[in-house]
Amino acid sequence: MLYEGKAKQIYATDDQTVVRIQYKDEATAFNGEKKEQLAGKGEMNNCITSILFEYLHEKGIQTHFIRRISATEQLVKRLKMIPLEVVVRNQVAGSLVKRLGLAEGTKLNQPIIEYYLKDDRLGDPLINHDHIATLRIIDPNTLADIRELALNVNEYLHKLFWDKGMVLVDFKLEYGIDEMGDVMLGDEISPDTCRLWDRETGDKLDKDRFRRDLGDVVKSYQIVWKRLGGTQHV
Amino acid sequence: MLYEGKAKQIYATDDQTVVRIQYKDEATAFNGEKKEQLAGKGEMNNCITSILFEYLHEKGIQTHFIRRISATEQLVKRLKMIPLEVVVRNQVAGSLVKRLGLAEGTKLNQPIIEYYLKDDRLGDPLINHDHIATLRIIDPNTLADIRELALNVNEYLHKLFWDKGMVLVDFKLEYGIDEMGDVMLGDEISPDTCRLWDRETGDKLDKDRFRRDLGDVVKSYQIVWKRLGGTQHV
Repeated sequence: MLYEGKAKQIYATDDQTVVRIQYKDEATAFNGEKKEQLAGKGEMNNCITSILFEYLHEKGIQTHFIRRISATEQLVKRLKMIPLEVVVRNQVAGSLVKRLGLAEGTKLNQPIIEYYLKDDRLGDPLINHDHIATLRIIDPNTLADIRELALNVNEYLHKLFWDKGMVLVDFKLEYGIDEMGDVMLGDEISPDTCRLWDRETGDKLDKDRFRRDLGDVVKSYQIVWKRLGGTQHV
Repeated sequence: MLYEGKAKQIYATDDQTVVRIQYKDEATAFNGEKKEQLAGKGEMNNCITSILFEYLHEKGIQTHFIRRISATEQLVKRLKMIPLEVVVRNQVAGSLVKRLGLAEGTKLNQPIIEYYLKDDRLGDPLINHDHIATLRIIDPNTLADIRELALNVNEYLHKLFWDKGMVLVDFKLEYGIDEMGDVMLGDEISPDTCRLWDRETGDKLDKDRFRRDLGDVVKSYQIVWKRLGGTQHV
């Protein structure tokens, strides 16, 4: 094992440029203060992420994803991860309610992109372009590329979810650099990292069910998976 | 009286385009949680702001300042204020220590500019370009102008303070729009709104003396005023 995060374990493979991701059933929130085992969550996130990365690949978006190899595992390109959480928002929810004093669900005229420094010790603070330059995380051109890519991913995913009866309220992306120096999407895109609301009822189908003790967490993730065309496990 | 802030009162004058600012002795910090009367503070801030705005005027920077008319009062152009606090940082201090996990005093390779939404109810949150666009506070071109102006002001003021034995660690600017639609500096530039350290000893000569209970608040402001050439009160 190369690394263990809150929701995934990363293992080396025989190929230096490829790693295996094992999705865990553990759910955490509020910087690890809230924690629970949710049977089946790892499998759903693995399956949903795989569907979404395959979809983005078809759209010409470069990601680390290679293929899913079991219910809870996938193979991906080994990346040097950029320590940023790039959040794309289409409607107001989560921390933006507090930050701007706007009601949850308020539709944004144009997407908001936010950069958070990935650092648990600092509580993943919001940072801006100047902070990123100061910390020498990435150069301004790469940051511009990342922003552009995030907006493109948002357009594709928002349409996909909409067509399947869901609103993509917001989501978090992480990027990495492969051995060729190419910047691409890494990490996962799942109900753990997106806010997804039912288009008709407004029901939350994402990690907010865990954060807010709404129950039926895995059941909601399964709804998302089925709507995306998931029909069988490996 | 048109408006009362934490440190100033604004009065109308016979001229619709001109207001009178009365600097108060009240010191507040931590969003108003800490409060104290400091005799002579208002006078020092009025005098220092006047010196600095006159200096910036000589450098071709447009400000609202017209003239000082008493120990604690000045006349300024009436502006429609933009609800942003624009912070310029040359060294790490204050909230940046916590945000980036860097030591107080760390020198920055290039200045950091931060935008805070001026809203006590929300605790003056850090916001970025996209938040500013969403809230329709100002258009992107005006924001670019404000940033450019802040960097220019920083260059002039950093040099001025340096030549007078002080380091301009960081400072906060506020902008407004006059009746002609011109964007210009408003508010004040004083030890209440700057971090100023003695160039040799590192002694703090600013509001951190109040925030951190270091004592000699007004005495320190007087040192700043004298070093800037202040020799007599009105």
